[in-house]
Amino acid sequence: MDLNSDLGEAYGAWRMGDDEAVLDVVTSANIACGFHAGDPVTIHRTARAAISRGIAIGAHVAYPDLRGFGRRHVALTPEELTADVLYQLGALDALATAAGGRVSYVKPHGALYNEMAVDESLARTVLTAIAQFHTPLPLLTLPGSAAGRVAAELGIHCYTEGFADRAYTDDGQLVPRGQPGAVLTDPDAVAARVVRMATEATVVTASGSVIDVELATVCIHGDTPGAVRIARAVRDALRAANVDLAPFVSDVGADTRS
Amino acid sequence: MDLNSDLGEAYGAWRMGDDEAVLDVVTSANIACGFHAGDPVTIHRTARAAISRGIAIGAHVAYPDLRGFGRRHVALTPEELTADVLYQLGALDALATAAGGRVSYVKPHGALYNEMAVDESLARTVLTAIAQFHTPLPLLTLPGSAAGRVAAELGIHCYTEGFADRAYTDDGQLVPRGQPGAVLTDPDAVAARVVRMATEATVVTASGSVIDVELATVCIHGDTPGAVRIARAVRDALRAANVDLAPFVSDVGADTRS
Amino acid sequence: MDLNSDLGEAYGAWRMGDDEAVLDVVTSANIACGFHAGDPVTIHRTARAAISRGIAIGAHVAYPDLRGFGRRHVALTPEELTADVLYQLGALDALATAAGGRVSYVKPHGALYNEMAVDESLARTVLTAIAQFHTPLPLLTLPGSAAGRVAAELGIHCYTEGFADRAYTDDGQLVPRGQPGAVLTDPDAVAARVVRMATEATVVTASGSVIDVELATVCIHGDTPGAVRIARAVRDALRAANVDLAPFVSDVGADTRS
Amino acid sequence: MDLNSDLGEAYGAWRMGDDEAVLDVVTSANIACGFHAGDPVTIHRTARAAISRGIAIGAHVAYPDLRGFGRRHVALTPEELTADVLYQLGALDALATAAGGRVSYVKPHGALYNEMAVDESLARTVLTAIAQFHTPLPLLTLPGSAAGRVAAELGIHCYTEGFADRAYTDDGQLVPRGQPGAVLTDPDAVAARVVRMATEATVVTASGSVIDVELATVCIHGDTPGAVRIARAVRDALRAANVDLAPFVSDVGADTRS
Repeated sequence: MDLNSDLGEAYGAWRMGDDEAVLDVVTSANIACGFHAGDPVTIHRTARAAISRGIAIGAHVAYPDLRGFGRRHVALTPEELTADVLYQLGALDALATAAGGRVSYVKPHGALYNEMAVDESLARTVLTAIAQFHTPLPLLTLPGSAAGRVAAELGIHCYTEGFADRAYTDDGQLVPRGQPGAVLTDPDAVAARVVRMATEATVVTASGSVIDVELATVCIHGDTPGAVRIARAVRDALRAANVDLAPFVSDVGADTRS
Repeated sequence: MDLNSDLGEAYGAWRMGDDEAVLDVVTSANIACGFHAGDPVTIHRTARAAISRGIAIGAHVAYPDLRGFGRRHVALTPEELTADVLYQLGALDALATAAGGRVSYVKPHGALYNEMAVDESLARTVLTAIAQFHTPLPLLTLPGSAAGRVAAELGIHCYTEGFADRAYTDDGQLVPRGQPGAVLTDPDAVAARVVRMATEATVVTASGSVIDVELATVCIHGDTPGAVRIARAVRDALRAANVDLAPFVSDVGADTRS
Repeated sequence: MDLNSDLGEAYGAWRMGDDEAVLDVVTSANIACGFHAGDPVTIHRTARAAISRGIAIGAHVAYPDLRGFGRRHVALTPEELTADVLYQLGALDALATAAGGRVSYVKPHGALYNEMAVDESLARTVLTAIAQFHTPLPLLTLPGSAAGRVAAELGIHCYTEGFADRAYTDDGQLVPRGQPGAVLTDPDAVAARVVRMATEATVVTASGSVIDVELATVCIHGDTPGAVRIARAVRDALRAANVDLAPFVSDVGADTRS
Repeated sequence: MDLNSDLGEAYGAWRMGDDEAVLDVVTSANIACGFHAGDPVTIHRTARAAISRGIAIGAHVAYPDLRGFGRRHVALTPEELTADVLYQLGALDALATAAGGRVSYVKPHGALYNEMAVDESLARTVLTAIAQFHTPLPLLTLPGSAAGRVAAELGIHCYTEGFADRAYTDDGQLVPRGQPGAVLTDPDAVAARVVRMATEATVVTASGSVIDVELATVCIHGDTPGAVRIARAVRDALRAANVDLAPFVSDVGADTRS
């Protein structure tokens, strides 16, 4: 079982979330690459902190949208999106390598993540760019996403994730933000949900049904109110249930390139 | 003998210089990395154009200063400068690798280049960052520079360059821009100077003396008025003098990492 | 009769078009405000150049999109778009006032201009922002645009423009870029079209029909190949036809605020 | 007596300090103008919040340095600095005017503020730019600063400020940050110091001496740990001492321009 979270989303003097607390809980770190957040110093420090704890590093690539935090669609051409993805992968990889580790997977951020779940053409552009990187990298995405289908077609390994603090519909989709009850805020309820995901691979939906969920990792948030308390409740509950945590990718070691 | 030039300095809709014309002349391309110029698409296209011609790719790393084109000093801390250099190296390398090649050397740009020629502490920060990159990369700098001394101390290979269109003092330094005659604009005069550098390793100084110059490559400019005419005059004169051009770095092939 | 053109679209070291040549022809200057182009020094210089020639200054407000030159849609909320428009108006106005003049009208740029022609909700947001500026400013837009209808409703004066180098359909719309013949490049043909617009208020459409066009000004481009030759041909043809040029807005004088 | 603080320093998704708490205490708000912090929406909201409370608005102009939060020197030419100052003044003024108020003074930020205290040439450039704005605006600076001398010479009104949480030397200067005791963190000690400044115009220095201080306003910080508790302690102590708070500038009303 793996827990992942978005990290390194500070920018200059601005902080975002409590990275230190989250780093004590997760086993995979989606590190911002500078396009929606994450200046080079922040990336470097976050990579070092992750590596020193044995945490896997994922590239949290995003649209170029600092002011919108990568939550806005940006109308890039396929050529622009390809180059932007590669630029971010390389930048993060150089800092992770200098910190003694490497990038082990890709988890797109914000609008790009959401769009790749439903738009095969966009997903194909991003996945084709990833395939051109000098190291094969798996993708982390939603279950049942367009990105997953395209990744299978292109022979790119794809992992799926659950969300600790999000309500699910009976068909396994997330209840859209803005609807009542879409986001869970009670640490104990969130922790119990993660334990169920880890031990039974099921989730209780908003309607009260129990459904199977396929997931290699569970995402927890570090930038919401109460995030730190939730993170710790999740960690403690997993320990109490004797669930071992380890990165979902097998290879998190140092760069082995000549 | 090698000719190098700054390339890929467009940004979005804005052009800079005539890259196509210069690419037909040079054997080493200093490609902008996005901090002073060079959006990801421009970098990608320029890397492809260089690789298809057998031109070596250098990382033209710079201060983060888009509006000032990297010509302003930016008061970065050593930690910031380290992270900024690695970020740029990785970003360019990913795009060069995707284009079928690799980055073969580093040539700092603008204010950073000038400051590394005289400031050992700054040079040490940049060179230590370069040494943390996953591939050993040599540095291109001025003869007699602080960067050269620090590179020798750190065991980093260092190459020096001459300038085709700049006047020299009797002690081998460049006549500062702004002084009369500091920049040569006559294509034939510039071409003759390059031939002399290539065949005799000497230069006629502003006072008329002949001095020895140590150089692995000669820099020509693509963004000055008359740059294209100068570039062609240099190429033609070198051909007439039977000077063969080849990259100053020996390995310009594709990425050999696993 | 008035000629307008987009000006001040340099950014730092990058040039765009030949502003000097265009300033010798037009009577209204749409000056970039820093969001798609136009750093503060460029704005200041362009405003001074316009004012010294008696040219009216329009605010060429745009989406925040430097790398895309304002040609991309940016998914701003109405609150964001409102604040961005006011920010740009104020910034340009301060520099125009310091240069001895003032802002006399607003002409949105690129994607924002095109979207305001068809999207009443977006146009309402922008026009409501303009109405909050400390000086009432008219809008320059396409004939028959959504922006024109909303402006009428809000009591904002609206002027319409023709395009010197664009083909028209029989119902008075522009032939979309990308279709054959959408853009005219022959200076004499463009000049003859402008004279016809100025003297008869008609245009010959792509199908050969003659239709009436309602326009207060004609837009010429400064950043296309041959732009300077077209600009001069237009000027000479208007002179030969005894068409007097003057800004379409009546008040282009200095700021009269206390 | 007036209290001022730096406000509107959020950027996109990133927060900075607790603006709501500080707005309940101060009578003058130095609002960021977008160059070191403060996107247009943040500026607009902060201006509205200030105006609704009768708080005066100052332009917190800065070097263009988002990643460095305006704390770095940026090597601008006088022409660049002039245009950058005017751009920021106009942008803020448009948003303040739309919010029903106006800009009443200028307080430079960070590196620019510190440099104007000692560099007359730089101060002259900024003050000459301010003098070109369409409304005469006074400057807020340190006692005994170079900016104050130049302002007097240029006929620009200049106000000086004290610092609630900073230690003073016997000659009335601030103890440099980084020296022991340079920054006071005890809310009661800070509050007592402000009351003394307000009622006696004196301060107890680091050595224990009592010196006179000339000040029109006292700066409190909203972005330090404990800032909110300090702000409230200051407010309560001033109330207990029957010190009335009011903006140091007399005119904070709405824009009176035609």
